[in-house]
Amino acid sequence: MRIAIDAMGGDHAPGVVVEGAVAAAKEYKDVELTLVGDKARIEPLLTEQLPNLHIMHASEVIEADDEPVKAVRRKKDASMVVAGRLVKEGAADAMISAGNTGALMTTGLLIVGRIPGIDRPALAPMIPTLDGVGVLALDLGANMDATPEHLLQYAIMGSIYRSKVHGIERPRVGLLNIGTEAMKGNELTKAAYPLLEGAPIHFVGNIESRDILQAECDVIVCDGFAGNIMLKTLEGTASVIFSALKTEFTRSTLTKLSAAILKPGLAAFKNKFDYTEHGAAPLLGLGGLVLKSHGSSDANAFKNAVRQARTALQNNLVGAIAVEIKNGK
Amino acid sequence: MRIAIDAMGGDHAPGVVVEGAVAAAKEYKDVELTLVGDKARIEPLLTEQLPNLHIMHASEVIEADDEPVKAVRRKKDASMVVAGRLVKEGAADAMISAGNTGALMTTGLLIVGRIPGIDRPALAPMIPTLDGVGVLALDLGANMDATPEHLLQYAIMGSIYRSKVHGIERPRVGLLNIGTEAMKGNELTKAAYPLLEGAPIHFVGNIESRDILQAECDVIVCDGFAGNIMLKTLEGTASVIFSALKTEFTRSTLTKLSAAILKPGLAAFKNKFDYTEHGAAPLLGLGGLVLKSHGSSDANAFKNAVRQARTALQNNLVGAIAVEIKNGK
Repeated sequence: MRIAIDAMGGDHAPGVVVEGAVAAAKEYKDVELTLVGDKARIEPLLTEQLPNLHIMHASEVIEADDEPVKAVRRKKDASMVVAGRLVKEGAADAMISAGNTGALMTTGLLIVGRIPGIDRPALAPMIPTLDGVGVLALDLGANMDATPEHLLQYAIMGSIYRSKVHGIERPRVGLLNIGTEAMKGNELTKAAYPLLEGAPIHFVGNIESRDILQAECDVIVCDGFAGNIMLKTLEGTASVIFSALKTEFTRSTLTKLSAAILKPGLAAFKNKFDYTEHGAAPLLGLGGLVLKSHGSSDANAFKNAVRQARTALQNNLVGAIAVEIKNGK
Repeated sequence: MRIAIDAMGGDHAPGVVVEGAVAAAKEYKDVELTLVGDKARIEPLLTEQLPNLHIMHASEVIEADDEPVKAVRRKKDASMVVAGRLVKEGAADAMISAGNTGALMTTGLLIVGRIPGIDRPALAPMIPTLDGVGVLALDLGANMDATPEHLLQYAIMGSIYRSKVHGIERPRVGLLNIGTEAMKGNELTKAAYPLLEGAPIHFVGNIESRDILQAECDVIVCDGFAGNIMLKTLEGTASVIFSALKTEFTRSTLTKLSAAILKPGLAAFKNKFDYTEHGAAPLLGLGGLVLKSHGSSDANAFKNAVRQARTALQNNLVGAIAVEIKNGK
């Protein structure tokens, strides 16, 4: 299994990327890792030589504020684009990047390319749930608008991912909606509902956004706009409440003491809302495996992304999706 | 000013409705209130006779689980429908109901009727913000799908409401979106953006759902589906976090003591998320004033809804919307 890692992507690149790759190369001997990026910056960070860890030089970097399509088209020697090309050409089986999300989606679409029959690849991060397991949500922003047929493909791809990568035997697939009854929703969800009912998945019906944290399904399907609204509201609300708690806790010596007693329990709870703990998000529907790591990923997150890619490759995730989509046509 | 109150709507009807109406009739002598509902149940609750508080008998009640359109069409003598008819016929200037939301929207549309030129009336509740003021959000579920022109009308109506009812001189109107740049979003928001820029409002651009609690605008415009996803995610996340806090606080005697010290500050913060504190939601775009009170409203909430209706009537809210919509055509 050959995995290309965009060494220049993410808030703390290339330092933590290299560190994570070294740790992964040591632990997963059956994986060949290639760090793609500025050789002059990567080499000094390599604390040790490992037989399964390589460097491929790339002279350019896509920045966080680059316009995605323009950047991918113009910066042909950007680390992210080069990694995508390795996947496209079969020189790598998967790529991992913590860089510009839009640019990575463009790299997936323009460089790696779609699985035949897939209309729109989808970004599928895990949303934290109260039980600590999380729900795979797609699409979370690769495509703002979706048709009922797109939602059907998202459902099939998400279900296969949860089964192949997380070992869930019969993943419960829900449709993000404003009510639980079958005929609730907008034109999109009303038309998607019967398609999902007829799909080769374990469809559990509509899921209301207020219940998203209750882990009532393993996969939640939505258009990119609604999904983004949901995720950002969740993040915003949690962040506002936690910072208000902090303010209350530090109001006086007495409240500080009280807070100290409550802290361990609260910290454990707060960690459930930590998105970086939930692994990299796959871009599903591409002809090769592409994983998006969180921009603020640390070395451990990169190591975990390698493990995630390894599991997906061992279980032939992309092949399984291709077969299912072909069968459905 | 004549206001009809659906005495049978809400979780605690008719008791708290009558109680609230009595309090309002006493405080606002310039208002004539009519309690619409089962006379045999309302009369014994009337603790005192007031010259400006009347009863109009209505023999039927629309229940919380009634199918809205069917209920409004069939239960012609339902308290909600009768109140709507009073507004339609000019026997009342406004109506207030805490009953079935869908049925009230149907009553607004079929009984009260739209302002000429308005395509879709919108439900516009206040969403709590950290500063305690709140943002008027519309549409929050009256129509699941919207066109760019609908969003334009929502923006104009919301802006007039904030100005006429809340006295905000130049209400800031934002567009709910997935990024702040002008060209972000789905087809709907991208097409609505230039319309809002050209409207006679103070348009402040796109607002991300993660910032909704930060009070960056006075009115937020969205289609009913996205708005519902946002509101329900906000409610669900807040409720989950507050109940997890409660669990942590009651874990041991020591945490209980600590929690007691933190409680006053936290309760004040939690109250900001209490939707019942934010008044009744107007149904904007109708030919008469229709206010939706929260189902769990207490007597004080009903009294406040009367004050809210009174302010809207004093400032001729409906007339102002009608003029602006006519001018825009």
